[in-house]
Amino acid sequence: MTANPNTLSLLDAARAISDGTLSSETLLQSCLDRISDREDSVGAWMQIDRDGATSLAKHPVPGPLSGIPIGIKDLIDTVDMPTGYGSPIYTGHRPAQDAACVSIIRNAGGIVLGKTVSTEFAYFQPGKTANPHDLNRTPGGSSSGSAAAVADCHVPAALGTQTAGSIIRPASFCGVVGYKPSYGYLPLTGIRPLAPSMDHLGVLTRTVKDAGFLASLLGRRPELDIRSSSNDWVPKIGFCQTPQWDHADTTTQSLLTNAVEKLGKSGANIRDINLSASFAALADAHGLAMDYEVSFTGLFDVTNHPDQVSAKFRERFDAGQQVSSRDYDDALGQAQRSRAELRNAMNTCDVLICPSAPGEAPLGLNATGDPVFNRIWTFAGVPCINVPGLTGPNNMPVGVQVIGRFGDDARVLQAAAWIQDHLV
Amino acid sequence: MTANPNTLSLLDAARAISDGTLSSETLLQSCLDRISDREDSVGAWMQIDRDGATSLAKHPVPGPLSGIPIGIKDLIDTVDMPTGYGSPIYTGHRPAQDAACVSIIRNAGGIVLGKTVSTEFAYFQPGKTANPHDLNRTPGGSSSGSAAAVADCHVPAALGTQTAGSIIRPASFCGVVGYKPSYGYLPLTGIRPLAPSMDHLGVLTRTVKDAGFLASLLGRRPELDIRSSSNDWVPKIGFCQTPQWDHADTTTQSLLTNAVEKLGKSGANIRDINLSASFAALADAHGLAMDYEVSFTGLFDVTNHPDQVSAKFRERFDAGQQVSSRDYDDALGQAQRSRAELRNAMNTCDVLICPSAPGEAPLGLNATGDPVFNRIWTFAGVPCINVPGLTGPNNMPVGVQVIGRFGDDARVLQAAAWIQDHLV
Repeated sequence: MTANPNTLSLLDAARAISDGTLSSETLLQSCLDRISDREDSVGAWMQIDRDGATSLAKHPVPGPLSGIPIGIKDLIDTVDMPTGYGSPIYTGHRPAQDAACVSIIRNAGGIVLGKTVSTEFAYFQPGKTANPHDLNRTPGGSSSGSAAAVADCHVPAALGTQTAGSIIRPASFCGVVGYKPSYGYLPLTGIRPLAPSMDHLGVLTRTVKDAGFLASLLGRRPELDIRSSSNDWVPKIGFCQTPQWDHADTTTQSLLTNAVEKLGKSGANIRDINLSASFAALADAHGLAMDYEVSFTGLFDVTNHPDQVSAKFRERFDAGQQVSSRDYDDALGQAQRSRAELRNAMNTCDVLICPSAPGEAPLGLNATGDPVFNRIWTFAGVPCINVPGLTGPNNMPVGVQVIGRFGDDARVLQAAAWIQDHLV
Repeated sequence: MTANPNTLSLLDAARAISDGTLSSETLLQSCLDRISDREDSVGAWMQIDRDGATSLAKHPVPGPLSGIPIGIKDLIDTVDMPTGYGSPIYTGHRPAQDAACVSIIRNAGGIVLGKTVSTEFAYFQPGKTANPHDLNRTPGGSSSGSAAAVADCHVPAALGTQTAGSIIRPASFCGVVGYKPSYGYLPLTGIRPLAPSMDHLGVLTRTVKDAGFLASLLGRRPELDIRSSSNDWVPKIGFCQTPQWDHADTTTQSLLTNAVEKLGKSGANIRDINLSASFAALADAHGLAMDYEVSFTGLFDVTNHPDQVSAKFRERFDAGQQVSSRDYDDALGQAQRSRAELRNAMNTCDVLICPSAPGEAPLGLNATGDPVFNRIWTFAGVPCINVPGLTGPNNMPVGVQVIGRFGDDARVLQAAAWIQDHLV
């Protein structure tokens, strides 16, 4: 038996349970012990269903996730636990059904251990979570609790969502794998919408293979489970500084540049990829379209509970109400064209890599950092993975973002797994 | 004062209220009287909030819909009325918020009179509604109650949704205007998803201008309000029999052919438009993709309430679980390409017209008819309008479907308004 089963990867834990070398009860107890030690400091959770989980761990449902505790971002509906969407308006709210992704996890034998902290409606107003590597720093957002819980070994995996940079950025800040699949790959039913044309469900784990495995179940897309893919394959990597490169700290720029060199020395074919000028405008177009959609998704709350909506949310909502449908339509058109342009720009490589965030997690818990390196990929709907492994000047995690063509998720996962093995 | 204010169009009622020639209380009472006379036979409503509506009509909220009673399809969340999604699983369910479209209606001064009957989860299992023109015939579905309520003058307008043919078909069967805008034009937040990549919010009214006016408010898209557009403009019309033409009754084929001739004599430039063979396959691709998505949106209910899900729904759900993600992705790709192909196919005309349904509303209330003439347009996400006016062999309404390019909704509305004026 492993000394600290809570530190096992999702796949290792599943294998140990399947082999009979680890019981679900032992795994769960190890996770709960870790949470007891750390949750007061980290604040990753809104709700933990200790009794329900303990009872289920005694007789776990058979399946590929049998007996594995998993964290669910509190933007995602659960029928047996309150779902607050990160807003005081919904404190104690009990949805009438589980989100589709939650049903899938339960049907696969997974144990829904609890709800992880989301920023308010998955936008910018932070919740209570601290970065487990430095409690004075943000974990990033909006999937703050999921990233922190996985990083701090409370659970091997958690669900997140991304509309701008809400999976990749917290994954980078907390030093875990974050995977945002191609747009439409994983079901959004039962997840509170923020900006539906760019909302994505995704996963946070500690290994790339875990991320692919969990996503393969959530989307019924077996090709995302890359466990059996060849170990000989070496990706052709495009180093894409992106039009946003100047937003990165100089130390992040150096870390990325050195990492690319290291990957080249490990055998990867590296080339520089420059995106056309249209990608510079795409980041702003993303913000405009997101605000526009927020002015619809947030309308009930701003109308009926104006005093319980944060100033940050209200500011974006108000900005969105000023956006004309014509400008919004133009922005969506840009996003759609960029997906095709990206395919052309990548014709000599398998994946691109660029920073996941401007730098280490910033100090302070009143903001979640800048999604500037995430907007264009999210808006284009292409797959992105944060691969952890680098370390910044303050000893905080710094991630590498691996990006692929729309629909080419299996290749992106394989490349990211190779990069995770060769980054340090 | 008008003798029967319940028969006024939405715009006429709004103008009369604004001019002071009609009070909201009088309009509401007229609608409630009509409902009292007819609802036992027609069964258009799940809930009617007589008290709330009466109270609001005394002091209506100012705005473009001030004091106008509107019906809301029971697939759409309302915080103050149960929302049942057409399923016994959700009898008495009280959502925590209004859908965005409901908030918009309330903020614009509209009175949410009640919830109209939907088929089960907006798929094929009918509710209690009968066709107001012949109580032995289906009103169509899934927006059954909305179409029947508007046709029978219970309200001047109602909201519907369409994933296959759920607005256009019941509008045709009941003899009202149904408008399904371009994909993404109207907000879906707070509407139970059926197949999110092809779900649309839309409207049912008695005039085309009413439909454009209401949609312009729901989508904050002022160009859809075509009241002030030129009366001199005459559309160039493509008569598109579609690859599905053989599914239409011979009487429907004759009615359409004669109608096109009449429109030509009224001054419209008419040409025949043939779609490429890919559109024949697109109808099947739509069904496949829809079933696939239903296997996610319906997962919680099928898992947890298998005995309360209809055999029809279960059959589609099971079929969807057998669809591979690869086939689904291919189907979505076809839909996306068809949107561009349609733009090319229409380069000599403003709109296409084709049947809205194979014929008159079929006899019997245990099925809602065939969406065969709706699938390709819905999957391509292009705007469609049912224009009523023709009459079939059993004296039942037969509609003409007017279709346009993606994003060209204002022109489609103008063309449909012209067609409504010149069809009979």
